[in-house]
Amino acid sequence: MKPGKLSDCYRVDDGGKFRLADFDPGDINGLTHSKEEARALLQEGVKRLTVLQDMLYAQDRWSLLLIFQAMDAAGKDSAIKHVMSGVNPQGCQVWSFKAPSPEEIDHDFMWRTTRALPERGRIGIFNRSYYEEVLVVRVHPDILARQRLPHELVGKKIWRERFEDINAFERYLARNGTVIRKFFLHVSKKEQRKRFLERLDDPEKNWKFAAGDVLERQHWSAYMNAYEDMIRNTAHECAPWYVVPADNKWFTRLVVADAIVETLTSLNLAYPKIERDKKRALDAARTALENE
Amino acid sequence: MKPGKLSDCYRVDDGGKFRLADFDPGDINGLTHSKEEARALLQEGVKRLTVLQDMLYAQDRWSLLLIFQAMDAAGKDSAIKHVMSGVNPQGCQVWSFKAPSPEEIDHDFMWRTTRALPERGRIGIFNRSYYEEVLVVRVHPDILARQRLPHELVGKKIWRERFEDINAFERYLARNGTVIRKFFLHVSKKEQRKRFLERLDDPEKNWKFAAGDVLERQHWSAYMNAYEDMIRNTAHECAPWYVVPADNKWFTRLVVADAIVETLTSLNLAYPKIERDKKRALDAARTALENE
Repeated sequence: MKPGKLSDCYRVDDGGKFRLADFDPGDINGLTHSKEEARALLQEGVKRLTVLQDMLYAQDRWSLLLIFQAMDAAGKDSAIKHVMSGVNPQGCQVWSFKAPSPEEIDHDFMWRTTRALPERGRIGIFNRSYYEEVLVVRVHPDILARQRLPHELVGKKIWRERFEDINAFERYLARNGTVIRKFFLHVSKKEQRKRFLERLDDPEKNWKFAAGDVLERQHWSAYMNAYEDMIRNTAHECAPWYVVPADNKWFTRLVVADAIVETLTSLNLAYPKIERDKKRALDAARTALENE
Repeated sequence: MKPGKLSDCYRVDDGGKFRLADFDPGDINGLTHSKEEARALLQEGVKRLTVLQDMLYAQDRWSLLLIFQAMDAAGKDSAIKHVMSGVNPQGCQVWSFKAPSPEEIDHDFMWRTTRALPERGRIGIFNRSYYEEVLVVRVHPDILARQRLPHELVGKKIWRERFEDINAFERYLARNGTVIRKFFLHVSKKEQRKRFLERLDDPEKNWKFAAGDVLERQHWSAYMNAYEDMIRNTAHECAPWYVVPADNKWFTRLVVADAIVETLTSLNLAYPKIERDKKRALDAARTALENE
């Protein structure tokens, strides 16, 4: 399958007219794969990804930043696990951003994520990110109050300003060789309920459950409005959002894998060519070793 | 003296029509102080600064970022030393940025300085900064080549883009409570020669001399063009440049101290007011201690 064929349907390059209601969390793009077929397809994607990542690392020019945002139980952790598990961890790092530390909260809101940006040649994965600053912080004004911003800087314009600042920052990263792809795993409220109940029923999944998660369900529509506004204001050619249907985990993973393979393919990666002088040095080394 | 009275003459809020030739490195604003008088004046400024910094720290809302850029021997280190020495180091950190490490060079060009940004309530001083990216990197194209940016991202537009990115970043910092003031210590080529010779003559100053410094003098006019273009493109109301005459060190220090005092004064700093509940807790603590 041509890379991008599956994920392009869910890619938002220009948020201008984006409406979340146009996207169905249960969508499976007409695919009728058995579990085995889906797994085999994913394995194929992961294999291609592994090869591409090796070239990214060897070429050492671009870096790739993958951002995951979603409601709880939408499958962020499992998508990262299943899509990225084949990749050499030397060239790939995952950062999970929970509630900020006092040191982090004493800086500008993108400071803690900036420190974790991937180096040239590497893939960086943000499990949650600076986008929390226009999601949970927007839904819960008391979190904004705790950020201790000077009062004169907190007004009605603050969300517009944050979108503008995020866009400028992502444009800057793109200009400096960091390719950005953003994934919103779009789960339905009904499916979230089902997954929460599973976590409560299954002792091996109990650890994943936090009582606070259920409370956040009360703010579902505020969150959906915040996600919609976020995508509308921050989806751009150089940093698109993928609105990935997330009611079926197998499908989520296929879309995410396809999007990453497509992105890396578009960079025309190649192993660095050896220059003449270096080639001569290699030949000399071979001769020395052979004559030992 | 009213804060800002001295430094306002050297402040550039809008770079649009800035010409470096309009500023004289030997300017002393008609002041005819003896060495002792200048020292006393500076001590007064430093004293005010110390009080203001204590309030900045206690209020814990704003942070202050001071950026110093200059040719070698313009007096950056000594200005920082003499102006900031009275300040409590717990609330003030100086960072010197030399040639970047391999890890730093593998990130976007503002990454290493971002990590060092001051926390809320503190003063951060950058002795050199991300502005090196439009100064030494612009004068020496081979440094840009070593940054390993993807080739398709390096074009004629790169300096415009860097100015745009820096401006967007500083606007973002300002919105998040970081007040930015930038100092270009403007020394003449003749005065630099004199100071270099002093470093060579005086064994106690030998350590400050690096042979490479003299080589950089050959690029003097390229540097002056780069500084001029930098100030033209990045001097803004929310992040002004001060073009500080630097042929007379005593005068440089007075201007820098005055600019910082003026900036902190403009924030209307105050010690936090104790709320009623907290006041009651304090009273209870007092009673408990007295009854011990």
